[in-house]
Amino acid sequence: MKKILVINCGSSSLKFQLYNVNEDKYEVVSKGIAERIGQQNSVIKIQYGDGPKTEHMMQLPTHSEAIRGVFNLLLQGALSSMDELSAVGHRVAQGGDIFKGSVVIDEQVISDIASLGEIAPLHNPAHVLGIRAVQEVLPNIPQVAVFDTSFHQTMAPEAYLYALPEDQYKRNKIRRYGFHGTSHQYVYDECAKLIGKKGKVITMHLGNGASLAAIDNGKCVDTSMGFTPLAGTIMGTRCGDVDPYIPLYIMKKDGLSADEVNNLMNKQSGMLGLCGYSDNRDIEAGLLSGNEKCLLATKCYVHSLLKIVGSYIAELGGVDALVFTAGVGENGVVMRHMLMEKLAYLGIKIDEENNKKHAECVMLSTPDSKVKVFMIPTDEELMIAKDTVALTK
Amino acid sequence: MKKILVINCGSSSLKFQLYNVNEDKYEVVSKGIAERIGQQNSVIKIQYGDGPKTEHMMQLPTHSEAIRGVFNLLLQGALSSMDELSAVGHRVAQGGDIFKGSVVIDEQVISDIASLGEIAPLHNPAHVLGIRAVQEVLPNIPQVAVFDTSFHQTMAPEAYLYALPEDQYKRNKIRRYGFHGTSHQYVYDECAKLIGKKGKVITMHLGNGASLAAIDNGKCVDTSMGFTPLAGTIMGTRCGDVDPYIPLYIMKKDGLSADEVNNLMNKQSGMLGLCGYSDNRDIEAGLLSGNEKCLLATKCYVHSLLKIVGSYIAELGGVDALVFTAGVGENGVVMRHMLMEKLAYLGIKIDEENNKKHAECVMLSTPDSKVKVFMIPTDEELMIAKDTVALTK
Repeated sequence: MKKILVINCGSSSLKFQLYNVNEDKYEVVSKGIAERIGQQNSVIKIQYGDGPKTEHMMQLPTHSEAIRGVFNLLLQGALSSMDELSAVGHRVAQGGDIFKGSVVIDEQVISDIASLGEIAPLHNPAHVLGIRAVQEVLPNIPQVAVFDTSFHQTMAPEAYLYALPEDQYKRNKIRRYGFHGTSHQYVYDECAKLIGKKGKVITMHLGNGASLAAIDNGKCVDTSMGFTPLAGTIMGTRCGDVDPYIPLYIMKKDGLSADEVNNLMNKQSGMLGLCGYSDNRDIEAGLLSGNEKCLLATKCYVHSLLKIVGSYIAELGGVDALVFTAGVGENGVVMRHMLMEKLAYLGIKIDEENNKKHAECVMLSTPDSKVKVFMIPTDEELMIAKDTVALTK
Repeated sequence: MKKILVINCGSSSLKFQLYNVNEDKYEVVSKGIAERIGQQNSVIKIQYGDGPKTEHMMQLPTHSEAIRGVFNLLLQGALSSMDELSAVGHRVAQGGDIFKGSVVIDEQVISDIASLGEIAPLHNPAHVLGIRAVQEVLPNIPQVAVFDTSFHQTMAPEAYLYALPEDQYKRNKIRRYGFHGTSHQYVYDECAKLIGKKGKVITMHLGNGASLAAIDNGKCVDTSMGFTPLAGTIMGTRCGDVDPYIPLYIMKKDGLSADEVNNLMNKQSGMLGLCGYSDNRDIEAGLLSGNEKCLLATKCYVHSLLKIVGSYIAELGGVDALVFTAGVGENGVVMRHMLMEKLAYLGIKIDEENNKKHAECVMLSTPDSKVKVFMIPTDEELMIAKDTVALTK
């Protein structure tokens, strides 16, 4: 019996999830989030087991106070002493070319994560703060880093290189990294169990951020996010791939700075830019009430998925299964139906009843469908907990 | 019997080709180029029939002198009088949302072409100069505009809209237009004759600039160039699609202006950026001599084609034929072989002997190949001449 804490640290927030691990059984005994660290009105929200969520206002000037606050709250309902905690696993956004898998954290790892802050300025410095905060309170506890990028490190150079001057890769580290790796790996593993083999699988992690991965025999062959999480398919508020002259043209035409155009592409684009809504629930409500813009935006969304799925089938030389996951993937009934209809040429047949379901593991294609389609709820925290256990045995 | 002059006017150059048209037979009787208009050492190069090319140094301060110079040279070996000329056809780069096909030029058309200079500043103003220069010398001759974009105007909104704030389309005209339309249409038409039907065809115009088109029953469904000719597949010196944050990152990281980054992506990227060579002949020579960078660059080139071909198969819901055309497409033996090998999963079988051929119309797949692959030399000037005849009968 072990207790494992999983932490996802942002610049002003700290998500946590505590697992009770018994052999191969992982049970969430508490979870929550510290919000507005370093700001006014900071708060820790926590839930014990299936109990109610409670909110605890407290001063959290730095991540150190946030970690101490979380530990204190865990001691009030989930841990009898800090000694019960076996290890801490951290989600880390950017592992660059350095990290091909999860690792036990030491000073070199911390230094490498910090150095990758150059290409992940919003995330990696915050992860280092989280790791240091745990070290302060529990200097001897093993900590593990699980990277959003490492699953994609198996891509071949022709899949990860951009056709830019060579020094943009060598000097500026510009290449395709991909993200959501933990999620793609998790749903791929679940899918492989369902189809009974390690096949050619395309996983679609469609949340507010969204990415696809082409996976062959367990190895990632390509993924749709790129140097940053802006690239790829259309997302809630991000544009995905556009003609690379466009950001420069908007700067010149509208007199905006590079940061302003970056903000426009990240925060005001995607489904929000197309139809005024970024949340798929609002968009599906719009579809039901005949909102033309919601219909057009959904067609654009499906079209961008269709193109990436098609390109991955070509890269894989065929496909055995497709997987939908994350918020939109687990709940976007209309979007899923539209995409599967477009893929009828593959021999995909839709199970209309199953496709109406939400957020449960289910096959969306009929048993005689040539290519199988699944909805598999993702669980990145569980993947992080499992990697943490595996590396700290 | 008619004589038709086809003109492709750039900001400092003017290409021309004179056709003798007899019923459905189009014969090139002269062709050439005026170079360095408005600069020092301007020159007109001309060829009559199959004769030798000759060079004529002359002052060409504006496009007017260039047109007069071209006409004078044509009178010395290809025309007995200017009255013989029936019409002039102009290649125009950007027709925007306005032009769905070729048109006879009047003042409104000139004004519309000029107005689209906002989104095609290097091309459309030069086209207007060329049209005006012809008007000055031959005020009554019919002129026709043939657009690089109009073939792609059949794309559905989900194929041409970017997921940007709506006003970027409405106010700034940012959408996918696509280019090389005349070439895609020409080789599609030739391919349809060869396969005996209007099928699902993917055309690959691979020159120094390169683009692909997905065509169903004669209508363009999607194309890889976008708002500008920078987007899409990897080209000789252009990067094609990259994460849209990259241009902004390079600006910040390397302290470059938007124009400098645009120049980097257009002139120093693509195959040149990857391996130091932009000309496919140099790259194939490098492959033969075991140059590792040339091999990597070619893998990247093929990979980017493969992804687009795959995405178009998904959009078309299948594919009947693929067509290679333009300089690299007509001569890139190694590249063609590598791409067709990757597409073996479609049931494509390579005709190894035919694939060694250069720049002639030939089937590159075996007769029993499930999907047919052709090399079809393009002829944009002929398409322009034909449209010009059709509209000025």
